Amino acid sequence: MQLLQTTDKDFSTKFKALVNDRREATVDVSGTVREILADVKVRGDAAVHDYTSRFDHYHPESLRLSETFIAELAAKCPKDVTAALELAAERIAAFHEKQLPQDIGYTDTVGVRLGLNWVALSKVGIYVPGGRASYPSSVLMNALPAKIAGVDRIVMTVPMPRGEINPAVLAAAKIAGVTEIYGIGGAQAIAALAYGTETIAPVDKIVGPGNAYVAEAKRQVFGTVGIDSIAGPSEILVVADDKNNPEWIAWDLLSQAEHDPSAQSILITDSAEFAQKAIASVEQVLNKLATKSVATASWEKHGAVIIVNDLAESIPLINQLAPEHIELCIDNPQLLASEIKCAGSLFLGRYTPEAIGDYLGGPNHVLPTSRSARFASGLSVYDFLKRITYLECNQQALQQIGQAAVTLAEAEGLPAHGGSVAIRLRD
Amino acid sequence: MQLLQTTDKDFSTKFKALVNDRREATVDVSGTVREILADVKVRGDAAVHDYTSRFDHYHPESLRLSETFIAELAAKCPKDVTAALELAAERIAAFHEKQLPQDIGYTDTVGVRLGLNWVALSKVGIYVPGGRASYPSSVLMNALPAKIAGVDRIVMTVPMPRGEINPAVLAAAKIAGVTEIYGIGGAQAIAALAYGTETIAPVDKIVGPGNAYVAEAKRQVFGTVGIDSIAGPSEILVVADDKNNPEWIAWDLLSQAEHDPSAQSILITDSAEFAQKAIASVEQVLNKLATKSVATASWEKHGAVIIVNDLAESIPLINQLAPEHIELCIDNPQLLASEIKCAGSLFLGRYTPEAIGDYLGGPNHVLPTSRSARFASGLSVYDFLKRITYLECNQQALQQIGQAAVTLAEAEGLPAHGGSVAIRLRD
Repeated sequence: MQLLQTTDKDFSTKFKALVNDRREATVDVSGTVREILADVKVRGDAAVHDYTSRFDHYHPESLRLSETFIAELAAKCPKDVTAALELAAERIAAFHEKQLPQDIGYTDTVGVRLGLNWVALSKVGIYVPGGRASYPSSVLMNALPAKIAGVDRIVMTVPMPRGEINPAVLAAAKIAGVTEIYGIGGAQAIAALAYGTETIAPVDKIVGPGNAYVAEAKRQVFGTVGIDSIAGPSEILVVADDKNNPEWIAWDLLSQAEHDPSAQSILITDSAEFAQKAIASVEQVLNKLATKSVATASWEKHGAVIIVNDLAESIPLINQLAPEHIELCIDNPQLLASEIKCAGSLFLGRYTPEAIGDYLGGPNHVLPTSRSARFASGLSVYDFLKRITYLECNQQALQQIGQAAVTLAEAEGLPAHGGSVAIRLRD
Repeated sequence: MQLLQTTDKDFSTKFKALVNDRREATVDVSGTVREILADVKVRGDAAVHDYTSRFDHYHPESLRLSETFIAELAAKCPKDVTAALELAAERIAAFHEKQLPQDIGYTDTVGVRLGLNWVALSKVGIYVPGGRASYPSSVLMNALPAKIAGVDRIVMTVPMPRGEINPAVLAAAKIAGVTEIYGIGGAQAIAALAYGTETIAPVDKIVGPGNAYVAEAKRQVFGTVGIDSIAGPSEILVVADDKNNPEWIAWDLLSQAEHDPSAQSILITDSAEFAQKAIASVEQVLNKLATKSVATASWEKHGAVIIVNDLAESIPLINQLAPEHIELCIDNPQLLASEIKCAGSLFLGRYTPEAIGDYLGGPNHVLPTSRSARFASGLSVYDFLKRITYLECNQQALQQIGQAAVTLAEAEGLPAHGGSVAIRLRD
């Protein structure tokens, strides 16, 4: 963890280094991934079975999980977890339903009829990781926006090492309205979703987090299908004054640090005394965590505490860092919030720990990382909709605006463009 | 050009081949591009000057065009072209202003305040090609949505071979509200926009079409900045009955064919007789075109005419082809239009040649190609906006939903997530 103070002589140098900190491991797996994709494209199911057998030690007769299997496993999810998932789904759905946009359509003064219609994608794939990162909450956050957008086929893939699967993941899939589930993972799952196999019909877009192979496979199939953003390690920035309980803030900082040794937690405060208290609390809380080793690695290597003269000074720092999550643990958090232009999601006030948003606040927890909040947004209903625009001229309308199009076509040296308009003006 | 009929025995095989036709040249320029990007990242302006000198034979003192230079050149744009650009800008702006979305914000029944705010990107780069494809209309279509979204810095790059530039491109830039123009192109321009140099401050997103080097450079800087889609060769699909003038339809088909030998024009009709007339008209119109060689290459290699039994039969064909542009030259085009789920933009009726939309219909002419209309949309105001979500719980609200979050955090094995909520429920 590094401690910075805006009054330090070398603050701007140190802050710039923090902004440019590349936290992702960069192992080049592109060759391996390219081979797997090509193999699945050619050999289909046989290739997917081979890789699943080799990497996951799982040898199913059918890649697709049966309704019976899903129902039986989902029933094994503890009742309180199922109830919590149901509450989460209800809240997430309520927020995402409000995103459903309105079509545009009007006739302008010239008599041209024009507009824009929102249309749901017809089939999407949702990748769910296996092992430690097999989170039921991610199933809800990826599948519900698709469902609400009106996607017909919501196809989930989840690796099943040695045939094992988290019942809560299947419970979440049932709650979220996933329509098909395949027990496969890795680059082979991405290939099957993008190209299709004998048993898996291809989809048009693939979303969801995964390891380096999955991320690279998504990058390589982009164009054949759409993808969401490539998720980097998680980030939290907490702005806190000295009226906070330092232990609360310590838990918040560690809630992201525990995800990944490459995760980053940053505290900005206007009190040097509070900074020291929070740092001491982090050390104490770390000792209580089953995830201590991961959280410690993240906090020691990437954690930072920045002391500012007053909280307004934090605004340009925040907009440069463009963090995934921001907590504003201050009075009147809306004032500061209105100045923040680069962030994934905001958590306002002293009673909104970021983890509430991870599970059931309502907004999506799939958010831009690695400073991409400068140009990108969290997952939403919009990611599962397309826009189709339309234009309709009648003869009178074309007479009024057609000549200008002919002029521009001629200026651009495109005679057939001009001719297609001119012949309708003339005839 | 190939002629298909849905009653042909081998129709489905032939149609599948048409759908999977890969029309793009695949030259691997990734190594060269990687070197140029790395060089500009390290050497900044000096590297950009070197490449500009070598590739464009242009050796300016300053890369940035002065206001005086821009004003003088723009004044050389022919008056009728400037007037047409102004009409186009007005119509494009009017349509894109209607896209400006509403923020979402509400307090739910539990007392949680939550919402979503749309925020403009602060700085974007617009790449404009030089030479034959240096189109003023593309400047309007890329810059105006950014301007309307509220982007502060709109930075344009355009190569100036031997110092030459199309006055209409500068006139369009002035009309569209571009804030800075640099006379550079190629991968070096993309690098300068993404990484910044001594004279060019970096941007957050880069849009606009370019050659293979530009497309590859955009692919490689993706993540450092946002990009729009990678544009492929243009496409038009015309649905026409026998009540059309075949010559009108021939002009329409050739209006996209003249762009690029890899462009594709497809006619779907329910009349074999009309198909023959349209094909004959295409041959006649081709002979009138200054762009004959390009248009002929496209039509011969990639053109297709499909005869259907009735026009309803065209719907599944259209949705599989997912073309960039569709003209419905039929009566009551809205009926068929409502069934089309995969397309970039629709042109309805007999008096709406696609070229009207290229210049001044209102909707954007930057549209998804290569079947990506299955999952992607045309350029819009949304591409220059981000969404920031927010959540605010008070103590009472957290008491009501907090325990469910703790339950889910425990189920996912994330104790600091659970702890950050639990400590606020307890204290």
